[in-house]
Amino acid sequence: MSTSVALRVIGHVRSQFASPQNMPIQPVDVGPLQSIELDPDFGPALCDLEGFERIWVLFHCHLSRDWQALVQPFLCSQPKGVFATRAPSRPSPIGLSNVALHRVDTTRSRIEVTGLDAVDGTPVLDIKPYVPSFDSHPESVAGWLESAEPHGVRSDGRFVR
Amino acid sequence: MSTSVALRVIGHVRSQFASPQNMPIQPVDVGPLQSIELDPDFGPALCDLEGFERIWVLFHCHLSRDWQALVQPFLCSQPKGVFATRAPSRPSPIGLSNVALHRVDTTRSRIEVTGLDAVDGTPVLDIKPYVPSFDSHPESVAGWLESAEPHGVRSDGRFVR
Repeated sequence: MSTSVALRVIGHVRSQFASPQNMPIQPVDVGPLQSIELDPDFGPALCDLEGFERIWVLFHCHLSRDWQALVQPFLCSQPKGVFATRAPSRPSPIGLSNVALHRVDTTRSRIEVTGLDAVDGTPVLDIKPYVPSFDSHPESVAGWLESAEPHGVRSDGRFVR
Repeated sequence: MSTSVALRVIGHVRSQFASPQNMPIQPVDVGPLQSIELDPDFGPALCDLEGFERIWVLFHCHLSRDWQALVQPFLCSQPKGVFATRAPSRPSPIGLSNVALHRVDTTRSRIEVTGLDAVDGTPVLDIKPYVPSFDSHPESVAGWLESAEPHGVRSDGRFVR
């Protein structure tokens, strides 16, 4: 069976964060507008995205060092299995961020968002609508992250290669 | 800039669904247990996942035909831009499913879940914990999907290559 898959880069993030240093660790604290500039081939596929309040952005964590089974998360003093964290040093380093959608420009193949915890130039792999009936489970128990408080926590260089 | 990214397959889905025909279109109606069997290299990275009620499974929609800018969704009679849908025929065909976690077997590199809308043999790319403070936005407006009712809707062969 195949052990790797080639996926298309559909565009890139334009963001105020030049490096992971001091970037918020989750989309909760990211203030100014960021944009995602798609390759013009993909502009028409943005049709009908307007009207969604939030979207998922899937991106390649292109600056991350190679994966480790255990990582030291920002939100805990003990190492954790990487699949029990959202750390970027994963076997397939796909970032998943839930962001607020502000503007869709199908003609210019561009969207504006807030809350994207990705550095400038990050390759974007996919955009999906956020649908509460599929995606929202407010009471779901969050294991070791149950008592974690991500607000105000900032990234450092620990996962950068 | 790179136009594609190679990502690792970490394991495969074991499921009652041999093909997309008649599979639920979202994780809401999938009854029996499914499992994800990881490559043994990745078993130790499952540590600490137990205790999370739900997880994200990111998988390669390996049976999908190539992307189209507009697709005919299951939940609407009008074509929609593919980035405004969860259809699998995407430029980077990554499936994103929110599933209930039942068992973690780190030693056997295996987890058991319910609600995974992926066929048997689907290559899995990543597993992440579901964290309500990052992922849950119950009031988020869902554009054209606001009035859609996915329960009971089943897939057909429209996106299969």
